[in-house]
Amino acid sequence: MSTNPAIRHALSTRRADDFAQWYQEVISEAEMAEESGVRGCMVIRPWGYGIWERIQLLMDRRIKAAGVDNCYFPLFIPLSYFAKEAEHVDGFAKEMAVVTHHRLIQDGKGGLVPDPEARLEEPLIVRPTSETVIGAAMARWVQSWRDLPLLTNQWANVVRWEMRTRMFLRTSEFLWQEGHTAHADRDDAMAETLRALEMYREFAENVLAMPVIAGEKPENERFPGAVATYSIEAMMQDGKALQAGTSHYLGTSFAEAAGIHYQNREGQQALAHTTSWGVSTRMIGGVIMTHGDDDGLRVPPAIAPQQIVILPMLREDDGDDALLAYCEELRRALAGQSALGEPLRVLLDKRPGKATQKRWAWVKKGVPLVLEIGGRDAAGGQVSVLRRDRLWQDNGKVNFAAMARDDFAAAAAGLLEEMQGGLLAEAAARRDAQIERGVTSLDQLATYFAEDRKYPGWVECGWSRPTGAALARVVEQLKALKLTIRNTPVGAPAPGGTCLFTGEPAVETIYLARSY
Amino acid sequence: MSTNPAIRHALSTRRADDFAQWYQEVISEAEMAEESGVRGCMVIRPWGYGIWERIQLLMDRRIKAAGVDNCYFPLFIPLSYFAKEAEHVDGFAKEMAVVTHHRLIQDGKGGLVPDPEARLEEPLIVRPTSETVIGAAMARWVQSWRDLPLLTNQWANVVRWEMRTRMFLRTSEFLWQEGHTAHADRDDAMAETLRALEMYREFAENVLAMPVIAGEKPENERFPGAVATYSIEAMMQDGKALQAGTSHYLGTSFAEAAGIHYQNREGQQALAHTTSWGVSTRMIGGVIMTHGDDDGLRVPPAIAPQQIVILPMLREDDGDDALLAYCEELRRALAGQSALGEPLRVLLDKRPGKATQKRWAWVKKGVPLVLEIGGRDAAGGQVSVLRRDRLWQDNGKVNFAAMARDDFAAAAAGLLEEMQGGLLAEAAARRDAQIERGVTSLDQLATYFAEDRKYPGWVECGWSRPTGAALARVVEQLKALKLTIRNTPVGAPAPGGTCLFTGEPAVETIYLARSY
Repeated sequence: MSTNPAIRHALSTRRADDFAQWYQEVISEAEMAEESGVRGCMVIRPWGYGIWERIQLLMDRRIKAAGVDNCYFPLFIPLSYFAKEAEHVDGFAKEMAVVTHHRLIQDGKGGLVPDPEARLEEPLIVRPTSETVIGAAMARWVQSWRDLPLLTNQWANVVRWEMRTRMFLRTSEFLWQEGHTAHADRDDAMAETLRALEMYREFAENVLAMPVIAGEKPENERFPGAVATYSIEAMMQDGKALQAGTSHYLGTSFAEAAGIHYQNREGQQALAHTTSWGVSTRMIGGVIMTHGDDDGLRVPPAIAPQQIVILPMLREDDGDDALLAYCEELRRALAGQSALGEPLRVLLDKRPGKATQKRWAWVKKGVPLVLEIGGRDAAGGQVSVLRRDRLWQDNGKVNFAAMARDDFAAAAAGLLEEMQGGLLAEAAARRDAQIERGVTSLDQLATYFAEDRKYPGWVECGWSRPTGAALARVVEQLKALKLTIRNTPVGAPAPGGTCLFTGEPAVETIYLARSY
Repeated sequence: MSTNPAIRHALSTRRADDFAQWYQEVISEAEMAEESGVRGCMVIRPWGYGIWERIQLLMDRRIKAAGVDNCYFPLFIPLSYFAKEAEHVDGFAKEMAVVTHHRLIQDGKGGLVPDPEARLEEPLIVRPTSETVIGAAMARWVQSWRDLPLLTNQWANVVRWEMRTRMFLRTSEFLWQEGHTAHADRDDAMAETLRALEMYREFAENVLAMPVIAGEKPENERFPGAVATYSIEAMMQDGKALQAGTSHYLGTSFAEAAGIHYQNREGQQALAHTTSWGVSTRMIGGVIMTHGDDDGLRVPPAIAPQQIVILPMLREDDGDDALLAYCEELRRALAGQSALGEPLRVLLDKRPGKATQKRWAWVKKGVPLVLEIGGRDAAGGQVSVLRRDRLWQDNGKVNFAAMARDDFAAAAAGLLEEMQGGLLAEAAARRDAQIERGVTSLDQLATYFAEDRKYPGWVECGWSRPTGAALARVVEQLKALKLTIRNTPVGAPAPGGTCLFTGEPAVETIYLARSY
């Protein structure tokens, strides 16, 4: 976030000054989403939704390649299903949208009210997640070991009543995919839990260009009822952690509540072991806070709804036809090529409006490559190329590069792939520079995260993996510093040294951070 | 629906005996969907959802090609938005799911109840359709004529509380796309309304292989508040009509309610003209009732999640490896080819189980081509091919054809395209044979649709397009015969002759039918 006073950035708020305000401004200026007028729910506009469609497409391919079948389960879940869950789940979340009536009537004063005659016998809950209703279906589908593993996924909207909402990061309604699987035994279920986790890690890094730590959450952060919860954790530019995906090994407790029994190879009845795993529109918030800069969003080419936008500088005169023909030829040449394994996504933007206004609109949206082409360029076989990741010259001028059109066409796919890799490398370098490994006491921890320190990043340290009351004490100590334990990286060696909290030998590495 | 006593069909119910029962059996035996335990909501299983994913993909391409942008709008709509609509809409539908609380609490008896402390100040409605909330967004987005046309679409779930439900055809929750557009004037909005209608007609015929009549609904069947409603109407095998898609020109009334004003080229404020159009999971019901037969579903190749299934006849002995290698070679050769503009979708089904059981499971699911391959076939370079559209020999034997593997690989894409065309031709011929054009009086109409006549089809006739009270009388007369007016085909010439109902000169052609 270095600052060059010669540069006049496109946004009015800088990340270094007010990260939260900057985040809202990116979303608004890039026309990604807006408040809907419905409490806690957003309208996802075409540019934001286009990014979600890209995420869906590329994640869905991975899900299908793993042999998981997409299904669709009801939006509504009967209250009694949750009562079953509430019995065996302490941390049962209760903030849910409750449907109690199925009809409106006129109130006689020109308004409408729920019809008292149409009260539901049993209230329905708008799904906050679908473990219970999918568990009930699995109980019908699973009879024998031959039916296992049963691998299902759904793309759906879910609702969790949130008091404080922030677009993409925490909204009452959000879009996600939820994988739900049933297995014959612990090993197979755990392998699936870790497969999904690895799928998310690979996706975050290769598609979102967002480096993450894939690891296990501490006991106090487990999904209610889970035996083990794993997450991918990304560092945002303000140093806070974002949990960007989770995968849970649920043991047999959900199978027991739902009755997912099967006959094993020995002819005996056994309980299935289940998993669930999900990512959501929250990932888009992660992309913004990982790659955005003081000029708006920068979209990794793999998820950019448009990767290249061609802006003809129309003059509403006789020359426009030749200029448009020149641009269209380029568009066609580009659209016939592939980058990152897919055809290039190229838009020739012919809408009315000033070219510079349109340029800045696309810059704020974060299109990787913007081409401006005027009559003189067309006559000379040239294009002016603006890379979103190298927007400014040191003197404060916009960093256009003149190229022969055919040279650009030949280089474009390679440029996009280079930018995809560059965004990941930049984010990884920034994250690694913001991980502090020298903290060995609680006092040092408090000093490191002192109030006057802006964007402090994460602390990596060893701990003794306390449980129960001992863990609760650690959580309290961290809470006083507004910190949480993010996760323990999968497969990392024991760190050596002593635990920051208990003084006992450290057995695991953990990350401590403020978080979204 | 000819019957050959030599054939032992895969389903226990025949279309000719009990069409409704047959429909349920297809859905169950093809594992497309099932009751969820939640009133009026179904679970869409992988095969049914795979068909929906194909419909989504191919429809979405057409929607995007028309320049329409996908967005996402909230699931919940504040009650007050409907109050606004109720004011100006007579036929305002009131059967909706109403959210009144946002929290559950323990009831002290081991159960859960809505928390009386968490009653919403204003109830929220689960969207039955999104005109109101999208209209409010359009009012924010539209300022000037330059912002028009504004073309949006969303893929979403919607809820309409239904008393009697039938899977895919009428469920309380269903999946759909809803296009919503705003335009500067009537002509542009009407052109969009008819563009969407034509998109649906072309899709139904070319993708679903389901011939339809695209036309205008009579006044009494308009979407509440619409100026004109258009539909595509398909004939099911029991002769009933299925409305499979609608497109509405809404005039300025929704724009007025939502405040969608713009400054026109002359600098004056004007109201936008809006449209909306949608198709839903109901289309899957149409596919079943158009193409299904007494052996289950037949899926048109364009929407088949798998077009070719290869069934190796495994014997759990040493020969299996060579057999699987032979099958895998074929799978690869097929997967590298294209039919109907897309790569072939081929599954090598290696799951445990008897080959004949697996064969019948795929037949009931309606996979276009099933290949059975045994060790002897592999040794001789052969395959046994079963076409789903030519399942039986006259002698009641299953109609396998032996082919050289390489010949099949060379012919497969052409076979699938031939089957796609064949299903459309078969459905069109059946429909045309079931349209009666000789009815000239109400008495004849009553005779034609007499109670003892099974699957009578449609009557095509001319009418004088009565409105208001005159139309209401016609609707009553038809209701007594359990008939409805389906639509008036777009672009059809005036029929000549006199109106069946009024005796006045006929000015339009209409279709009369029983319907879903």
